[in-house]
Amino acid sequence: MSVSTTNTPTRLALDAMGGDNAPGEIVLGAIQAARAYGIGVYLVGREEVIQAELTKHDTNGLDLPIIHTDEVIEMDDHPATAVRSKKNASMTVALQLVRDGKAIGAVSAGNSGAMMAAALFTLKRIPGVERPALGGVFPTKNKPCLIIDMGANTDCKPEYLQQFALMGSVYMERIFHVNRPRVGLLANGEEETKGNQQVVQTHQLLKQNAERLQLNFIGNIEGRDIMANATDVVVCDGFVGNVVLKLSEGVGEALFSLIKDELTSSFVSKLAAAVLKPGLKRIYKRLDYAEYGGVPLLGVNGAAIISHGRSNARAIQNALRVAKETAETGVTQAITEGVARLATAKAE
Amino acid sequence: MSVSTTNTPTRLALDAMGGDNAPGEIVLGAIQAARAYGIGVYLVGREEVIQAELTKHDTNGLDLPIIHTDEVIEMDDHPATAVRSKKNASMTVALQLVRDGKAIGAVSAGNSGAMMAAALFTLKRIPGVERPALGGVFPTKNKPCLIIDMGANTDCKPEYLQQFALMGSVYMERIFHVNRPRVGLLANGEEETKGNQQVVQTHQLLKQNAERLQLNFIGNIEGRDIMANATDVVVCDGFVGNVVLKLSEGVGEALFSLIKDELTSSFVSKLAAAVLKPGLKRIYKRLDYAEYGGVPLLGVNGAAIISHGRSNARAIQNALRVAKETAETGVTQAITEGVARLATAKAE
Repeated sequence: MSVSTTNTPTRLALDAMGGDNAPGEIVLGAIQAARAYGIGVYLVGREEVIQAELTKHDTNGLDLPIIHTDEVIEMDDHPATAVRSKKNASMTVALQLVRDGKAIGAVSAGNSGAMMAAALFTLKRIPGVERPALGGVFPTKNKPCLIIDMGANTDCKPEYLQQFALMGSVYMERIFHVNRPRVGLLANGEEETKGNQQVVQTHQLLKQNAERLQLNFIGNIEGRDIMANATDVVVCDGFVGNVVLKLSEGVGEALFSLIKDELTSSFVSKLAAAVLKPGLKRIYKRLDYAEYGGVPLLGVNGAAIISHGRSNARAIQNALRVAKETAETGVTQAITEGVARLATAKAE
Repeated sequence: MSVSTTNTPTRLALDAMGGDNAPGEIVLGAIQAARAYGIGVYLVGREEVIQAELTKHDTNGLDLPIIHTDEVIEMDDHPATAVRSKKNASMTVALQLVRDGKAIGAVSAGNSGAMMAAALFTLKRIPGVERPALGGVFPTKNKPCLIIDMGANTDCKPEYLQQFALMGSVYMERIFHVNRPRVGLLANGEEETKGNQQVVQTHQLLKQNAERLQLNFIGNIEGRDIMANATDVVVCDGFVGNVVLKLSEGVGEALFSLIKDELTSSFVSKLAAAVLKPGLKRIYKRLDYAEYGGVPLLGVNGAAIISHGRSNARAIQNALRVAKETAETGVTQAITEGVARLATAKAE
């Protein structure tokens, strides 16, 4: 990643066709990001469609070049097949801009499986990285916490999890400015003997290599520790990470729904609810995934951010900010160095 | 389980020494259960301590015999070691009463690992059951949902999960009167190709044997489906089940805490909060684990209920009710028959 030279303007690449709200909200997100962060954004997709969206807004002075491509990977396309058969899909072209040094990072809110496959295929793995992983930011009560892997790899060896720990720590340090991020291994108990075989073995690897990896490994953590801010990084396989993410969304929605029922059950509580509405909205906002914009695929050669299919303009703006920061703070470089130190340890 | 004959009174066995609130709340729970359900309860533990508790209450007409034993397994004892070395521990003696046909079910709020080990050791597995499992009731928005396994087995073969499905379905049908309980397999996506290897293989087993097992197998479910009442039984290994349980407790607590902060942030909202307090208390109650009393260890030869260490009298009363219903509705017998049908299928 030696892209942002003085010769070329610093630009990001955005899949303008990806997501439930494409292209309207996606293009609007790019406009907002270009203005907020003083950055250029390649808008990749069908030119006339993107142009039509751009003319709806004031884009004066903004650097928003369109890269035309006809092909689009649909939400219900089979990821790997679609990436292979649609070589000029908008998300693939966006990633090629990163690979070719024209953009410092890529964002797509399209088919997330396809975006992962396309990123692996186009950017390739960092040498030594066993499995790239999704680092999902989980909004806890006081501050964000990163769950890695959030769903890229369902069956993981302890060696993969060890690398997830490294990648997650780098990301929280660089993007969320956490000093020596606490790295916890998700288990069913705090003692190092707790866990399934995968977790017990990972614990031993991390204990052994924490210093070399410059990790602040705090040992096993339990499900409730995630929300209690007991750790900055949660390490687990992608199967468990996906269950954790979707369950917590479900628990949150169910509780809000219960509260809503209660609040509107009588005239007096309706009045009280009106008073409390702003406060509840603030809580919603703190727990809103759009705030964090997207999930990085860590371990590939470059910044690739996967946004939620339901992303609105604000989510896209935030995802572009995350892509920019991921590139500019040298996340890829730091992971490369960390993995290299691990390889040295093995060779010794 | 052919115990409740007309000759002997129907009794349960309770470890009076187990739990953070023993013996006071435990003995009180027994008194309440004896009165509410017209049942006898053996109180197992140190006689003078139990006697002292009994004299604090009106126990007139209640059948509450004390079975004296000096040994108690402590909360921080190593489960298997403690069960082996303390042969007359109160929880073990309670289970022996079930084994010997003197009680129809046993309850302990003591060291849960030890209670599991003691139940396995004393009651033994039902013939054909690979691994007994904990069936934890998860309070969703509208009605309870059973998660099995909740933590007894961290590493599970697909064959174990298939039996968990059977045991969970039987339990929800008999104890919660759910007609043809929906059985969902926890995964990271709905399609049958989703999941780790364990889950993908379990899906195929369940699809193949659902009819023979008389299961209403609805396929894969995701984390958010649990709270949305999309299933009555959630099948997963004990590692994932434990994470799910603790995470959801954590999410719930964090949300309530956030709401509390908001409600008390200004004078007006404090007033509003006072109005809403009863409603929020109702929500708390719906989500309170004490309502469900305890977790059955399914797959052993008899009703063994493991209660939370923090159980109060109400939780113990509910656990005794659950033990009684587990015995009286023939849960063990139904599991025995189901597992036998599975064995026949294999032999064919």
